Amino acid sequence: MDSTSGLPTLAVVGATGAVGAVLLDLLSTRRDVYGEIRLVGSKESAGRTLRVRGRWAETVALTPEAFDGVDIAAFAVPARVAAEWAPVAVERGAVVVDGSGAFRLGPDVPLIVPEVNPDQVRERPRGIVASPGCTTLSMIVALGALHGRYGLRELVVASYEAASAAGRDGVDTLYAQLEKVGGDRALGNRAGDIRGVVGDLGPFPAPLALNVVPWTGAHASAGWTSGEMAVRDETREILGLPQLKVAATCVRVPVVTAHSVAVHAVFQERVEQREAQDVLARSPGVVLCDSPETHEFPTPSDVVGTDPIWAGRVRRSLDDPHALDLFLCGDNLRKGAALNTAQIAELVAAERAG
Amino acid sequence: MDSTSGLPTLAVVGATGAVGAVLLDLLSTRRDVYGEIRLVGSKESAGRTLRVRGRWAETVALTPEAFDGVDIAAFAVPARVAAEWAPVAVERGAVVVDGSGAFRLGPDVPLIVPEVNPDQVRERPRGIVASPGCTTLSMIVALGALHGRYGLRELVVASYEAASAAGRDGVDTLYAQLEKVGGDRALGNRAGDIRGVVGDLGPFPAPLALNVVPWTGAHASAGWTSGEMAVRDETREILGLPQLKVAATCVRVPVVTAHSVAVHAVFQERVEQREAQDVLARSPGVVLCDSPETHEFPTPSDVVGTDPIWAGRVRRSLDDPHALDLFLCGDNLRKGAALNTAQIAELVAAERAG
Ligand SMILES: NC(=O)c1ccc[n+]([C@@H]2O[C@H](COP(=O)([O-])OP(=O)(O)OC[C@H]3O[C@@H](n4cnc5c(N)ncnc54)[C@H](OP(=O)(O)O)[C@@H]3O)[C@@H](O)[C@H]2O)c1
Ligand SMILES: NC(=O)c1ccc[n+]([C@@H]2O[C@H](COP(=O)([O-])OP(=O)(O)OC[C@H]3O[C@@H](n4cnc5c(N)ncnc54)[C@H](OP(=O)(O)O)[C@@H]3O)[C@@H](O)[C@H]2O)c1
Repeated sequence: MDSTSGLPTLAVVGATGAVGAVLLDLLSTRRDVYGEIRLVGSKESAGRTLRVRGRWAETVALTPEAFDGVDIAAFAVPARVAAEWAPVAVERGAVVVDGSGAFRLGPDVPLIVPEVNPDQVRERPRGIVASPGCTTLSMIVALGALHGRYGLRELVVASYEAASAAGRDGVDTLYAQLEKVGGDRALGNRAGDIRGVVGDLGPFPAPLALNVVPWTGAHASAGWTSGEMAVRDETREILGLPQLKVAATCVRVPVVTAHSVAVHAVFQERVEQREAQDVLARSPGVVLCDSPETHEFPTPSDVVGTDPIWAGRVRRSLDDPHALDLFLCGDNLRKGAALNTAQIAELVAAERAG
Repeated sequence: MDSTSGLPTLAVVGATGAVGAVLLDLLSTRRDVYGEIRLVGSKESAGRTLRVRGRWAETVALTPEAFDGVDIAAFAVPARVAAEWAPVAVERGAVVVDGSGAFRLGPDVPLIVPEVNPDQVRERPRGIVASPGCTTLSMIVALGALHGRYGLRELVVASYEAASAAGRDGVDTLYAQLEKVGGDRALGNRAGDIRGVVGDLGPFPAPLALNVVPWTGAHASAGWTSGEMAVRDETREILGLPQLKVAATCVRVPVVTAHSVAVHAVFQERVEQREAQDVLARSPGVVLCDSPETHEFPTPSDVVGTDPIWAGRVRRSLDDPHALDLFLCGDNLRKGAALNTAQIAELVAAERAG
């Protein structure tokens, strides 16, 4: 607790990363509910100054003492770092909001999307609240709204995931590769040519420039990736539908920021295109962008830097009156990460306030 | 008929285009079954020399006389040009193999994929045989093989379509846009920035560089695009399954050449991952590339310039033993266009031979 203001002290752990940068931006523009904001990074970043709420603040190294007096700690660090340090922060009295995969779906850790299941944030026996992965977050608010109206039964999802979901390293790799393939028009025509010139693959298992890569995360089992399993498990958990049928194919595309998903959703009830569009348009956190006659649909370059999930291409399936096909876009660093974390932290701050 | 060789005379109409260039390449490398090969282009291209079968040949303008003595005319021109000129070629005695959308699904025109329904090539009351669209061709050989074993019931498809499917204009536009967005790292972060700098959108309804565009073709009805309707109608027609449930979302991606599709396929029979992989591996025209443990899966940059469809990420759905999820890649200018046209022309040539 900040003794002057009486407002909670927030620590941003991983303030120097891709998600951290957006978190600082959000803290500077959203309603300010915090007293002190403490910026935490790795040892290498200690002393670096970053701008938050219009002032420069110095980053401190991640140590147990960094959590002294901290009420809420927003973690935006790799999973192994979160796994080690979140319990330390809890030990020192903070509630941890973790955006990594370290605690998602773990026992006694609620997985929260404030538009969908805000009340579960209070049930956190370990003092840790998890924010879902960015692929799930690219679709879950829109799907939650449709589920509320029609009752979700089955999902088939194909993703178009941005490089920045792999952090600064992902962004650097994409730009470096684009520079190498540059204007060389011969490169698009022969197998392996691009692989030959892009150089470092960075965090991706294949070249990303002028390519798409049907693989995110690690191998889970029977050919499924951890990214695909996460979409299934997280969606079931957040919507409270443990039997939901989910089949996802996760694909990385040469986009810097903003994920897209093509969704085929089957419902208990019959769906109507017009009404489904209305459900989405009225849903907080979702913007409907869907006028096919004038080529109005969401694309990553049109939604990057914005908070909501954008929904378009809403169609009733031609062969199944219970199914909808739609295309969703959202900024993976905002709703897909920093924004959802900030929203959860605000729920925790509000609890404390009253 | 070529009077010296006794072999059929082939006209390539649209020899100067993106598909035409690959057709000439295929004619130069596949078994040679033709006598004369006549190259036809627009008036503007008349007199241009192009290389085929190791020799330079002069392009002639598209006139009725261009078809004199022609046995088989392979059309690789825009649909409106094909609609006008295919009947002229037939009138002059040629069998037309058309790769445009002008006659696909039209009455009395067979829609042929030589690996799937070769025999139907003989039933062509109008003298015209159609080759399917490139999105359908990116998946149909693999799906035909799986259908033969398990009985296809339903398809959910999301595509990742290359710029060259929109011809030379598509390729030029993507390269020009990539040059404009170049190394400007600020551009990935704010909505509309990319739209502001890419300049000409060319044949695409939104920027393609550093973006994905969920729209191919024209608006068909109720929010569906002509590209999406074509996937459904062509797949039903080729597989002889008029009731097949198909839901497609077609998306353009910043790849020069080679389409990809994420497919969720539901079958009558129970599927087994291992056996489905074997079915694909044994299927002519398909290569299995599927070792998740070592990150082996097809990507556009690894398959461009090759003939087959590459299949990977083959997984039995976790929640439905009758469903398979898989990822397919194929060169849209080869199997997606020129190769399928060349294969059909060879079927027609073989008929004539005996
Ligand atoms: N990017 C997304 O779209 C996205 C979406 C959802 C969830 N996430 C999750 O959010 C987390 C952060 O991702 P990111 O994309 O921001 O990654 P990033 O750009 O690589 O940033 C990593 C951050 O973690 C810090 N860090 C790394 N090792 C550390 C250590 N040993 N001690 C202290 N700090 C350390 C880094 O500090 P230094 O700068 O000092 O090295 C940096 O601030 C990850 O768990 C990721 O899975 C990301
Ligand atoms: N690209 C693909 O992946 C793909 C896949 C499947 C099917 N297709 C279909 O294949 C056809 C050709 O596509 P493309 O990608 O090769 O297009 P493209 O690169 O734009 O080439 C068009 C070709 O048509 C010729 N042409 C245009 N107008 C003409 C006219 N009035 N008279 C005579 N010739 C004319 C052009 O000749 P000039 O050079 O003389 O102008 C050129 O050879 C289209 O119908 C397309 O839908 C394309």
